[in-house]
Amino acid sequence: METIIGGTRRASVGYALDDLALVPSRRTRDVELVDVSWRFDAYTFDLPVIGSPIDAVTSPQTAGMLGQLGALGVLNLEGLWTRYADPTEVLAEIAGLTPGPEATLRLQQLYAEPVKAELIGQRIDELKAAAGFAAGSLTPQKVERWHHAALEAGLDLLMIHGVAVTAQHVGLSDRTPLDLRSFTARYDIPVIAGNVSSAKTALHLMRTGAVGVVVGGGADSASTTPAALGIDVPLATAIAEVASARSRYLDESGRTVHVIAAGGLTTGGDLAKAIACGADAVMLGRALASAEEAPGRGACWGVSAAHHELPRGRYFKVDPLGPLSVILEGPAHRDDGTVNLVGGLRRAMAVTGYESLARFREAELVVRAGR
Amino acid sequence: METIIGGTRRASVGYALDDLALVPSRRTRDVELVDVSWRFDAYTFDLPVIGSPIDAVTSPQTAGMLGQLGALGVLNLEGLWTRYADPTEVLAEIAGLTPGPEATLRLQQLYAEPVKAELIGQRIDELKAAAGFAAGSLTPQKVERWHHAALEAGLDLLMIHGVAVTAQHVGLSDRTPLDLRSFTARYDIPVIAGNVSSAKTALHLMRTGAVGVVVGGGADSASTTPAALGIDVPLATAIAEVASARSRYLDESGRTVHVIAAGGLTTGGDLAKAIACGADAVMLGRALASAEEAPGRGACWGVSAAHHELPRGRYFKVDPLGPLSVILEGPAHRDDGTVNLVGGLRRAMAVTGYESLARFREAELVVRAGR
Amino acid sequence: METIIGGTRRASVGYALDDLALVPSRRTRDVELVDVSWRFDAYTFDLPVIGSPIDAVTSPQTAGMLGQLGALGVLNLEGLWTRYADPTEVLAEIAGLTPGPEATLRLQQLYAEPVKAELIGQRIDELKAAAGFAAGSLTPQKVERWHHAALEAGLDLLMIHGVAVTAQHVGLSDRTPLDLRSFTARYDIPVIAGNVSSAKTALHLMRTGAVGVVVGGGADSASTTPAALGIDVPLATAIAEVASARSRYLDESGRTVHVIAAGGLTTGGDLAKAIACGADAVMLGRALASAEEAPGRGACWGVSAAHHELPRGRYFKVDPLGPLSVILEGPAHRDDGTVNLVGGLRRAMAVTGYESLARFREAELVVRAGR
Amino acid sequence: METIIGGTRRASVGYALDDLALVPSRRTRDVELVDVSWRFDAYTFDLPVIGSPIDAVTSPQTAGMLGQLGALGVLNLEGLWTRYADPTEVLAEIAGLTPGPEATLRLQQLYAEPVKAELIGQRIDELKAAAGFAAGSLTPQKVERWHHAALEAGLDLLMIHGVAVTAQHVGLSDRTPLDLRSFTARYDIPVIAGNVSSAKTALHLMRTGAVGVVVGGGADSASTTPAALGIDVPLATAIAEVASARSRYLDESGRTVHVIAAGGLTTGGDLAKAIACGADAVMLGRALASAEEAPGRGACWGVSAAHHELPRGRYFKVDPLGPLSVILEGPAHRDDGTVNLVGGLRRAMAVTGYESLARFREAELVVRAGR
Repeated sequence: METIIGGTRRASVGYALDDLALVPSRRTRDVELVDVSWRFDAYTFDLPVIGSPIDAVTSPQTAGMLGQLGALGVLNLEGLWTRYADPTEVLAEIAGLTPGPEATLRLQQLYAEPVKAELIGQRIDELKAAAGFAAGSLTPQKVERWHHAALEAGLDLLMIHGVAVTAQHVGLSDRTPLDLRSFTARYDIPVIAGNVSSAKTALHLMRTGAVGVVVGGGADSASTTPAALGIDVPLATAIAEVASARSRYLDESGRTVHVIAAGGLTTGGDLAKAIACGADAVMLGRALASAEEAPGRGACWGVSAAHHELPRGRYFKVDPLGPLSVILEGPAHRDDGTVNLVGGLRRAMAVTGYESLARFREAELVVRAGR
Repeated sequence: METIIGGTRRASVGYALDDLALVPSRRTRDVELVDVSWRFDAYTFDLPVIGSPIDAVTSPQTAGMLGQLGALGVLNLEGLWTRYADPTEVLAEIAGLTPGPEATLRLQQLYAEPVKAELIGQRIDELKAAAGFAAGSLTPQKVERWHHAALEAGLDLLMIHGVAVTAQHVGLSDRTPLDLRSFTARYDIPVIAGNVSSAKTALHLMRTGAVGVVVGGGADSASTTPAALGIDVPLATAIAEVASARSRYLDESGRTVHVIAAGGLTTGGDLAKAIACGADAVMLGRALASAEEAPGRGACWGVSAAHHELPRGRYFKVDPLGPLSVILEGPAHRDDGTVNLVGGLRRAMAVTGYESLARFREAELVVRAGR
Repeated sequence: METIIGGTRRASVGYALDDLALVPSRRTRDVELVDVSWRFDAYTFDLPVIGSPIDAVTSPQTAGMLGQLGALGVLNLEGLWTRYADPTEVLAEIAGLTPGPEATLRLQQLYAEPVKAELIGQRIDELKAAAGFAAGSLTPQKVERWHHAALEAGLDLLMIHGVAVTAQHVGLSDRTPLDLRSFTARYDIPVIAGNVSSAKTALHLMRTGAVGVVVGGGADSASTTPAALGIDVPLATAIAEVASARSRYLDESGRTVHVIAAGGLTTGGDLAKAIACGADAVMLGRALASAEEAPGRGACWGVSAAHHELPRGRYFKVDPLGPLSVILEGPAHRDDGTVNLVGGLRRAMAVTGYESLARFREAELVVRAGR
Repeated sequence: METIIGGTRRASVGYALDDLALVPSRRTRDVELVDVSWRFDAYTFDLPVIGSPIDAVTSPQTAGMLGQLGALGVLNLEGLWTRYADPTEVLAEIAGLTPGPEATLRLQQLYAEPVKAELIGQRIDELKAAAGFAAGSLTPQKVERWHHAALEAGLDLLMIHGVAVTAQHVGLSDRTPLDLRSFTARYDIPVIAGNVSSAKTALHLMRTGAVGVVVGGGADSASTTPAALGIDVPLATAIAEVASARSRYLDESGRTVHVIAAGGLTTGGDLAKAIACGADAVMLGRALASAEEAPGRGACWGVSAAHHELPRGRYFKVDPLGPLSVILEGPAHRDDGTVNLVGGLRRAMAVTGYESLARFREAELVVRAGR
């Protein structure tokens, strides 16, 4: 959908998940008949849920817990765990900060500590010990610098994650920019790349050989990229765009690339709508930072909140919502949909009559005009 | 109306009652000339109002009061009244709770008490004694289990009520799922079923032999289904959709199925707009929970607020607004439309020039763009 | 503009003044060159402003003040001034009420005092003494009852004012309903009638011989008709609709009927936009109730707030904004547009390049999409 | 885009910057490769940023600082600096006011002091001494009166700035209205004129010989023109409209006129979106009033806030955000995009893959439907 904002200037029209809702169909289904398992590359996960690579959510320990629950935790290989041999005290200090410019300044100082290659290796060992599987993330700017350390240590899945990742990066002549196509050709490791938010960019990214893409528009409740950079593609539209690229790429290549939705998903309804818009799985940050086991200990932030020149994320407090297992699978004693997220997804599928995630992507949607 | 949210993904556009308003026509009418009576199946009601089957609203006693006022109260046959021989103390305890997770937890515990067949019979006797008419509700999951007890006791009207009821339920092989068509064929009792929110689903439901359907999108102010499951069809659109199914079914069968609007209706304007969108009658929860005779005693909640794994409704306090008779028929000393609901409906019809509910469903509507 | 809200149910799309703004043209003009005078029937007013027939705004005394400022005050002939020989104490008591149900109840009691024919005559004498001109309002329900007293006393202008006035009222057989056509034929007095909010209804009303119509959608900030009755046509659309009826009636009859916009106009921008949408003049309630001379003494309410069965207006407090002359013509020491209303209108015309109210009705408008 | 608001009344549809966001493209770029320099007339500026001609922002001293940072400060030649030989005490008094009608009244009194020709000359000398370049603003009403003093003193750039400037002003016969065409023909000095908000008006203005136009719709967060006059063209649409006039004028004349966006721009995202909508540069008021060197010393207001009859701007307090250099170029310790504005612009261009401001005006935009 396009509109003219003035003169000849065009703009597309974008919808956030909150603008939409699911519509029941003419069939209902027992919730026990619903299957939310996610087959991805050579792996099967009971839950279509990824723990976000932010230090408030994923540690080697919580990656293990997520693995036991059937989900996947991705460790940020440029976060506190690879900057500090023992980040315990740093995490404790961060948890005690008061939101505001002073917290931001302190985060900038703490993240100024350099990443160490040996800690990358050590964390991957810990991930394998805890979860039997090591997934880690690097920024596109640092993939060339750190991937050797990660691959040597036996990383099983690499997420290349930044505010926008493309197949075509123009870099300074004295730097080696990441060439995703040659990277995926060179190595066996499955690569997930993102954020991406439009069909064309996603298609180019899929053609580099990535097995998955992260769809994120930037409008995460904790992200201030919309304010700082003006970039913000509403998530429902971004997912639907990227899902259409997945279909086109499947037609041209026979390969299925997985679409992972990220950005401000905090309720069972968010999960259900993200998948109904076209996602295969969701990546959760703030929602899991509310877990009692979360390394953030009641605080939530991403690396972008610590950018040395232009922070683009908030440091904020989260309500404690119980153990990870309860947040994902219940039982809930809260009535706002923030606990038992997967239970919400399962019931959304049951009530609208869908048995599998793949079929649920055909569910009817309604735009709520009055919002 | 349809839109594309991204790629090839379509969504319909839905309007809430708040998005709309009534437009006066070129005729006005004395309010005394307005007829709001509702002829339903073999019954005539002075008022097109149903008391919602939630424990905060309908008890055998308030069902009697509603009957005397010309309305209809429906008792939840899986609520506190069939779980406790004398729910007085339980109701008193619930009325004293403070909204929040602890209230939810206590509701979960109190509703864990099993339903008893003999109490179903006893309550139906009490309804008949108080109102001369016994209307009760069961969830689609429990109709097979409890309908015998209800029919034996002489239930006059059965409402099968859940977040979404369809003609085609897929259940586990070891359960007997409700088959509405055979159920209505087997028994003489008139059945109202719902919620339903789209034309196609409603048409299928009408073809099962139901005499009425409840239209509810899920966006009740007390419902958290939109957050927990992502399901939420704005009510004005849901009513208009289901009303179009009523017309189509009338054409194909010669039978008229009644459309009952439910979900967050709290003002005279809400009643008027719900009927103008296509409803025959309205079902009121929160609005009647504000009555001084209401069993909720200043609190309001539905059974969904007590779901053991995933509560989908709020427990909240309501302002006392006077006796049931005043809430429905005035006089009002409040200026916000929450008292004298039927007076508001009558005046809306008078000001826009309509004499009967049937004609009022042709009233002109306007979408308020700026909301 | 029409839309489908669901099934086959149609609705028009309505805009409030807040949804719109004026767009400057390619010409500007000195503010001294702008003419805001309003020629109406045999009269010319320096300002296109009418004081609303509510007791908080128009008394015989303030009608005189408005006359001296070049505006017109309309006295409610069914308000306190015709119920009480000396309403001073009643007004003082009302000014001291605290907003809420108790204030509403007390208003209901105070307005239960009957209207007296002799007081109608006396107030018209006072209006003539103070303003040299007597304009008064009656409700359509009471025109037959009270117009003799008013006409005998020499009323110069009659406003027939209710939530919706039409040319075709269906009344009880034992009542004489108002027949506007025969009324305007019988008497010489110019009649303004309203509210009206759609083109068709307005055209029928114009054909009865009224010299003016009041356009009001019901969305006055103090009106609770939208909540109580569900009736609410956004004002910008209502004005544009009625203005199109004025054009059509001019074509068919050669007569120009004046369009008076009313409902929540509180800023210079509101005045400018109401006229640019098609109005000839504006009627102000709350805006003038803020004057230090206003009979409301810091409170504002309309008769609808005192309805004995279903109050449809708020009783509320207003900020003191200075003398009537300052509110209308400045100078302002407030920056929010609520003072120097006519100065705002004049400058809006100057900045957009229009010299007269008639030409200003061609000004370019923009819908503010993001609101 | 046009719509009908009622009857035959048309309105265009306007978008604010907040309604829009940027969409990443299929290319990314190192931030060091981004060029934000602005070539304007005979001058080149490192940053496409103009300090607004309001007394809270631009003094001779801050104009010098802005010049050193590669930006341009424009001094209001009818502000405090040309009314008072030494405005230090006046500025200190203003900084201590409490927002509200009393502050407005005091501003009206302080700005009642007449402008003095000799102070115009003196300030231009000071600007040249501090910045090597003297840019000043006059209102269209006073250009004829004061331009001699300014040109004699060697003004380098004249901004003619009012709520709406047009090529065709209709004035009183005893006044000499500004004739922009003859003015620009008479003098060599480059002239920037505005505000302008539509394509047609902008085209007429460009044809007078202006080298730049200021696009401002009126919806500055500090402006109350929308309330006081009803005038308010949402900025994104105004920029796109005027940019289309620039293209058309380039076609017909071969000359490029610069489009400068103004009005409530406070974040890096605002800068990026204003330029992506079609602007060459931005003019900042409130954003720079937050600098520790700002003459406003923690307060912000424009001359319109001091209008003697109808103030159309707010006096308000601003948070201190650090030195001018940090606000423009960082580093930031705030996460809300209000610091390091140019860094935000640069990163927005890098992330969406654009190298120059000219190319960035082709960036993809999305309308955020849910806002």
